[in-house]
Amino acid sequence: MGKINEYGAAAAGCHKEDTMRLLDERIVRDGAVKPGNVLMVDSFLNHRLDVSLLNEMGRELRRLFADADINLVLTIEASGIALACFAAQQFGVPVVFAKKTQSVNVDGGVYAAQVESFTRKRTYDVVVSKKFLHEGDRVLIVDDFLASGSALFGLCGIVEQAGATVAGIGIAIEKGFQEGGARIRAQGYRLESLAIVESMDETTGAVEFR
Amino acid sequence: MGKINEYGAAAAGCHKEDTMRLLDERIVRDGAVKPGNVLMVDSFLNHRLDVSLLNEMGRELRRLFADADINLVLTIEASGIALACFAAQQFGVPVVFAKKTQSVNVDGGVYAAQVESFTRKRTYDVVVSKKFLHEGDRVLIVDDFLASGSALFGLCGIVEQAGATVAGIGIAIEKGFQEGGARIRAQGYRLESLAIVESMDETTGAVEFR
Repeated sequence: MGKINEYGAAAAGCHKEDTMRLLDERIVRDGAVKPGNVLMVDSFLNHRLDVSLLNEMGRELRRLFADADINLVLTIEASGIALACFAAQQFGVPVVFAKKTQSVNVDGGVYAAQVESFTRKRTYDVVVSKKFLHEGDRVLIVDDFLASGSALFGLCGIVEQAGATVAGIGIAIEKGFQEGGARIRAQGYRLESLAIVESMDETTGAVEFR
Repeated sequence: MGKINEYGAAAAGCHKEDTMRLLDERIVRDGAVKPGNVLMVDSFLNHRLDVSLLNEMGRELRRLFADADINLVLTIEASGIALACFAAQQFGVPVVFAKKTQSVNVDGGVYAAQVESFTRKRTYDVVVSKKFLHEGDRVLIVDDFLASGSALFGLCGIVEQAGATVAGIGIAIEKGFQEGGARIRAQGYRLESLAIVESMDETTGAVEFR
């Protein structure tokens, strides 16, 4: 695929390998490894958003879960929303994003779960209004990162509280050296990560992919 | 245009009037007026996201600001992100979303502003990394709501701290009976709101548009 061209390289007929390589290369080029196993990708994934790359990632999630009969994409605010939107655009379905604290603007009953944030070192509640998640829904859960899996287990719990089905889980970047991915897969969930970081070294900045 | 069809009615060549009517009709159909001048649009704009409608709104912002030479869309987490993404996709530019608290994942210097939340009745800081906003940038600020204008003034201040230009402001729903829109326009900003609610009545649920 050659040099990454932020707005243009991603061809419409992009194959899985190309999309994954695009993201891997982007992590190598623009990511930064910080103390405490933090992988900074704020230049394209969770502060500044490279819309062209995210659109390709959405296409790839559509390809990976084409047979999963998805009718809803569920994510968690804030940095999951962009990828969820581009995936949902490909599936032609709506997005619901779980909110991190109970807002005065979420009325009626909610499904709730407790989530522990890896980067912020704190626990918070996530809620989804019962109006927007129903028995029989086939849900694709989307998020930007998978590390300990705490956010994902919270979202899976919310889907199951509603009597809906977790038809798939699509992640941008999985930290393969943390336990979340293995735990999610061990429970039988269908999990696809667009990039899996096997190891990273904060002294050299090197990132290895699975 | 007839009855709104959530996934399909919005034709590619949609005119301004159609997009605005689509949003006005949707507010009337699915919005709810709550005590304290709260307009609930959580079924399509800020909890559940109607991706098809948001995509049309993004197109309309592109049409309205076609001559504004935009190279960046700036919004604020969380509920501005979706519309910002669809607008940015039309312009072919990246999004930066301001973060509501200083995260351990925003390193280096930041531009910051204080914002007062209308619905949450509290003050918080919003920050944008200096890495992602530069002198000479021509910025389209996008948000879901305009009421008091506090968030917008914060974002305008951040753009101006960076020596960049607020080339336009695109809002989904302006509460025309609050002072934000008039204040923003009085300062000479080019502001376009896709729907302007002139009045709303919490007892009857009636919503009137400008």
